[in-house]
Order: sequence, then C-alpha cells, then structure tokens
Amino acid sequence: MTLQTYETTPTRFVEANGIRYAYRSLGKESGTSLVFLIHFRGTLDNWDPAVVNGLAKDRPVVLFDNAGVARSGGQTPDNVAQMARHALAVIQALGLRQVDLLGFSLGGFVAQQVTLDRPDLVRRVILAGTGPQGGEGFAPFSPEVQAITEQEQSKPENALFLFFSPTQTSQAAGRAFLERLGARKEDREPPSSVQVRDAQLAAIQAWGTPQGERYARLREIKQPVLVVNGNQDIMIPTINSYILAQHLPNAQLILYPDSGHGSLFQYPNLFVEHASLFLHG
Amino acid sequence: MTLQTYETTPTRFVEANGIRYAYRSLGKESGTSLVFLIHFRGTLDNWDPAVVNGLAKDRPVVLFDNAGVARSGGQTPDNVAQMARHALAVIQALGLRQVDLLGFSLGGFVAQQVTLDRPDLVRRVILAGTGPQGGEGFAPFSPEVQAITEQEQSKPENALFLFFSPTQTSQAAGRAFLERLGARKEDREPPSSVQVRDAQLAAIQAWGTPQGERYARLREIKQPVLVVNGNQDIMIPTINSYILAQHLPNAQLILYPDSGHGSLFQYPNLFVEHASLFLHG
Repeated sequence: MTLQTYETTPTRFVEANGIRYAYRSLGKESGTSLVFLIHFRGTLDNWDPAVVNGLAKDRPVVLFDNAGVARSGGQTPDNVAQMARHALAVIQALGLRQVDLLGFSLGGFVAQQVTLDRPDLVRRVILAGTGPQGGEGFAPFSPEVQAITEQEQSKPENALFLFFSPTQTSQAAGRAFLERLGARKEDREPPSSVQVRDAQLAAIQAWGTPQGERYARLREIKQPVLVVNGNQDIMIPTINSYILAQHLPNAQLILYPDSGHGSLFQYPNLFVEHASLFLHG
Repeated sequence: MTLQTYETTPTRFVEANGIRYAYRSLGKESGTSLVFLIHFRGTLDNWDPAVVNGLAKDRPVVLFDNAGVARSGGQTPDNVAQMARHALAVIQALGLRQVDLLGFSLGGFVAQQVTLDRPDLVRRVILAGTGPQGGEGFAPFSPEVQAITEQEQSKPENALFLFFSPTQTSQAAGRAFLERLGARKEDREPPSSVQVRDAQLAAIQAWGTPQGERYARLREIKQPVLVVNGNQDIMIPTINSYILAQHLPNAQLILYPDSGHGSLFQYPNLFVEHASLFLHG
C-alpha cells in the first residue's frame, strides 16, 4: 500500500442529508482523527502540505469542503451555527465517533461551535488565528482587510498581506508557503464562488458582533484547547487569542514572533511539534 | 565519570571582584551554557530538579546564588541593575563567552538587564513568570501577596499559594513540586536572610514602577526570547507576559492552563520540551 500524502490522496465524496461533500483523508490508520476546518474562501487545496503531512504522521487526518464550497454540494450558510451542523454531518457520515479539531480563522469559529454542540464527540481542539464569538476588532474588519475580502476572485498572493507580516523574513516564509500550496498538480478544487464569499463574510461579521454576556460560552468548552497565532494578526487581532486562552477553562496559548494570521504556515515544523505535544499530552 | 544531577552536583565557589559566589553546574559538556536566574528569596535549592535535569540533558547548565544570597558573599543590592552586574561577574569568572539565560520572576528582570547590558554575550533568553520594567500590577503587589513576601522566614508551603492555582489539580502539582525540591539531601543552602528579603523587595518594586517611555527598552533586545507563564499569575500578572511578547522584537509566548506564577514547575516535562525546541531552533 502506498502511503498517501496531502499532495496525492484522492478527493472523495460522502453524502449526508442529501448533500454530497468533497473530502480527503490520509495519515496513520489508528488513533483519533484530526479534522481540519479551513478559513474564509478556503478549499481542500488551501492547507499547508507541511502541516497536514506533519500531523498525519501520527494520526488519521480528514479535510473537507463545507456546504457550497468548491465541489461540495448545497449552499454555504451565512452563519457559523449552520456551518457547524454541516461539519457534524460530514464527521458522522464518515463514521467518526471521536475527533480532534484544527480550526483556522473562520474554521476556528466552526470548531468552537462544533465543540459546544457535541462535547461528547470532541476530544481536543486546536484554534489557530481565530477568536471568540463577540471578539475584538474583526467586525468590521479594517478597511484594508475588508477591501481584499470583497474581491471577486481570491488571489493566492493576498495571503502574503493577510497571513504574513510585512517583514522580509515573514514575506519570504509566505512565498515558500505559496509554493508548497502548489505542490498538488491534479484533482484540485475549483475556486470558491461569490456566493461562498458573501455568505462567509456575513457569518464572520455576525460571529464578531457581541451578543449577550461576553465570552460566557467559552466556559462550556471543557476540552483541552491549544490556541495559536502570530504576534501581529491583522485579520483577527492577536488579542483575541489571549482572550480565548483566558476564558477557556483548559487552554494553552502559543504566539509566534514576526508573524500574522497564518503563523502555522510560517512555522509549519515548529507548529507541528507544538501541536503534536498537545495532541499526545 | 559519574553523570551529575541537580541533586548530586556539589556546590562550588567562584570569586570575582572580591566576592565569593556559590554555584553549581551540571549537564552535557559541550554547547551553549544555560544560566539559571532564580526568584525572590530563592537559592541554589529552589529550582525544580525535573526542569534542571531535563534541560541539562542537552546542554551545560549553571546555577548560582547572587550577591548576599545564602552562601554567596557580599550584600544583596536593592536594584536590578546591580544584580545584573553580579550575574555578569559570575558568568565572566566562569569563563563563559556566550550563554543562554533562563530567568524566573525576579530572575527574569535580571535576565532582561543582563541582555541589555551585554547583548554580545547572550544568545537566547527564556523569561518565566516575569514582566517588563514598568509592567502591570506588581508594584505594589496585591495585599495577599505582599503579606507573604514580608514574612521573616520564607516557608516552602507559600509556593502553593504564590506559584500555583487554587484548583485541586494545580495544588496537587504544587505538592509534587515541593517533594521534588527536597530530593537533594546534603550540601543544601541556608535560607535567605532578612537583608535579602528587603533588598529584593525594593528591587522588585523599583522595577515594577514605570520610568520614561513605557516598554521602550524591550525593543533593544534582539535575541530570540521565549516567554512562558501560567494563565493566572497572582504575583506578576499574566498580562505582563503578553506585553513582553508584544514589545520584544523576537519573542514566542507560551501560557499554560490552570496554573500560576510557577507554571514551569507545574508542567516541568512539557516546559522542558518547549524550552528545548526553542533553544535548539
């Protein structure tokens, strides 16, 4: 049997509630599956191969396109609650009884909601470049970030501005990341549609708007959580990671230097080491 | 040759500028020495054997009593600047041309000052349970903390309140730490005197009082720094660790769950893993 990598594992489809979801899986056959939840406009092709393959060494990993994204059927909902329901439908359709979650950015909102909805299903959670419901300074985004998120086509180069710091070192790491993203040559996903853009932007803005007692629901997440971010995140400001770690009952916080929203893609090897220590612990 | 451990390595003495300093060394013979800088009232006997032995596996480690502390000669100065000069005197007297520093609490203030004074000497820095000059909320200490720091004799049990969280899990980890502290049976240090208490308290309070442009000097520390703390430090409030990481040009921040000032003693194995990744990186 050939060991699959993120670059080579075929895209498969699984059906639940009449929707056909695109997914990929790889990694060790035994152990708790780590389910990846991607960012705004992201598809199966937007994870860093160095992160996915690194984490797949020690556990099964599963990636999927949520409803309406790329080759998945259905419509992208305009709220995180429904995105979490789709994620749960995929997890159940794949027969997973317990999972770890890695949510990045919008995917981190979904990871929190999945954990609140089905605490019995979720063992451990990694939240990268994300924030709590009603967090600080991402509803609205800054004008510069907002302008990019509204572009009709998402360009890979946007990541250099949105995910990395303006320093030479961070920009060089960003270009290396973009190169790794292109390593898969076939069976790639189409870009996300304008419907995805609009629905996801609405979901992000609603999540970022305080409702009720601020941060109260974080207390309900009893699972061990690893919160990571760059020290200067311009999309979901870094203070949100600190707030998450202060309000979650059992959270470890790691902030990386000279980096932004996509710190896990700037330091993929160190992030894999830190995440592995956390998932094993 | 017997491999020395923190529990067995003999106390030695080194002289500089007419003062005789007590120190201990152990660990791998080659590599950059990691110099430990201890907390308020701490002596050579106050480090966690699990931390010291864990870090000594891959590098030489050096611990010492600063001027006036335990069996070291001289008077304890009432300011961090002079403590840093004594630390530099010991490092030079031991013939170390380049060092890594691990400063805990007051020792973290000294580590910052040593790095500012001799940037050429310092390769990497770990700052645990500490804060920047002019930081938040430790000058003065809270009344509860202040009352304990003023006791004539420092009791080991104080660490349960000062270094650990009030939860069952953290308190259990605290008791395990106290037990490890007692593992060395001979050649132990006498407790610190009242002169040490008063001078160190004055130094801490002066360090904690803002002077000039706040946090400006942190920008001068270009070395890679790892900042660690518990999520609820009641001595040097945790926000100071976040401030350090935001203002130092090259800092990684790790905050541990369910823990306080002494998080490195609550999670000694995980801390050693994180510190080793940082020191190797």
